[in-house]
Amino acid sequence: MTRVLYELAAADPDRRFSPFCWRIRLALEHKGLAFEGRPWRFTQTEALAFSGSDKVPVLVEDGRPIADSSVIAAHLEAAYPDRPSLFGGEGGEALTRFHVAWTDQVLHPALVPLLLLPIHRHLAEADRAYFRRSREARFGKPLEAVCPDEDAQRVTVRRTLSPVRAVLRAQPFLGGQGPLYADYAVMGAFLWAHAVGGPDLLEPDDPVEGWRKRMLGRMGEGSRALTFG
Amino acid sequence: MTRVLYELAAADPDRRFSPFCWRIRLALEHKGLAFEGRPWRFTQTEALAFSGSDKVPVLVEDGRPIADSSVIAAHLEAAYPDRPSLFGGEGGEALTRFHVAWTDQVLHPALVPLLLLPIHRHLAEADRAYFRRSREARFGKPLEAVCPDEDAQRVTVRRTLSPVRAVLRAQPFLGGQGPLYADYAVMGAFLWAHAVGGPDLLEPDDPVEGWRKRMLGRMGEGSRALTFG
Repeated sequence: MTRVLYELAAADPDRRFSPFCWRIRLALEHKGLAFEGRPWRFTQTEALAFSGSDKVPVLVEDGRPIADSSVIAAHLEAAYPDRPSLFGGEGGEALTRFHVAWTDQVLHPALVPLLLLPIHRHLAEADRAYFRRSREARFGKPLEAVCPDEDAQRVTVRRTLSPVRAVLRAQPFLGGQGPLYADYAVMGAFLWAHAVGGPDLLEPDDPVEGWRKRMLGRMGEGSRALTFG
Repeated sequence: MTRVLYELAAADPDRRFSPFCWRIRLALEHKGLAFEGRPWRFTQTEALAFSGSDKVPVLVEDGRPIADSSVIAAHLEAAYPDRPSLFGGEGGEALTRFHVAWTDQVLHPALVPLLLLPIHRHLAEADRAYFRRSREARFGKPLEAVCPDEDAQRVTVRRTLSPVRAVLRAQPFLGGQGPLYADYAVMGAFLWAHAVGGPDLLEPDDPVEGWRKRMLGRMGEGSRALTFG
């Protein structure tokens, strides 16, 4: 089987920074499924037209495209039931929706003000105008004005992580003794920051920082190379 | 087997208002386990001394006490594996810690300013001084000054619920097609508000309100009587 994952990339095609694409990269590694990660840029909509989606991640298995990270994760679990589970059972699959929703609706919004300028700096020339226009419309102000106090925003991010921190005081991963898709959802946010050289977010003695390092240490070599592009 | 659940009560012993006690009441109903719910008040520390805990819930099975809602829930799952699962599997048990931590660390703090005065109003005379003293020390101000703008605080609660709302747009319960302990953790917060006649929190068309009503509708008759004491 051929398996291709379209991933958002910066000017350097090895700088893959989408938190949603990272979820699927880590999920594919979790399942032990070989794949080619293919860089894709915001403005390459025609290269993705075949999939019916205008956003990544898109996973293509033997020519059949699947879009949307949550749909892809559910597909991987259903299609490869004999590989390590991403959810730890049916209850776990339903429960994981909360980790994903919290990451999307609470953690990402706390983080994005810190990342807009680092992302913009690393984008391909052709993507910069699109990125600036779409994000300035979303925030209603220039990119340079979204985060007037970076230190305060880092404090907000750390405070936002308090329920993650409480869990990681009790067990090594959100999934328990090993990572599950819930871990990949949250880790996607940190890899997003990491890949664009965003500011350090966590104190060294933060249990979340210990978990982040464990998660980095478990990544495949190919993936690790992409975060430090 | 005798099974007694010590539950926090107001002046009216049928007014049970602790969100942590509600979790266990709902968990016992989920498991189909008969029990006597015994009212306990903040200042009755000697009545609980046998358990080694100074807080409820305490569950006593055949004279053996177990304290702490999360410990009790884990015990019920382990001791009654043939009854309906509270977690939907081992992955689900680990993943549920995040729902519990989020409820404790994010949802409860958003809610408590709205509930301090309603709780105080309903407490037994003997408990009022303790409650005022301990909560005023925690908040650093008089009970009457903790929530200067109730409408704004209700907006905060609704905004805080955004990840719960996102999940409940996709499935009827946090646990999927039926409730799991994650649902009981969050529902405990609403029963806390309900039991002390707190303000309405949700708009009628909020998916969280639809879920709250489904949850109320599933409760046993004995439990329903206690919320409307």
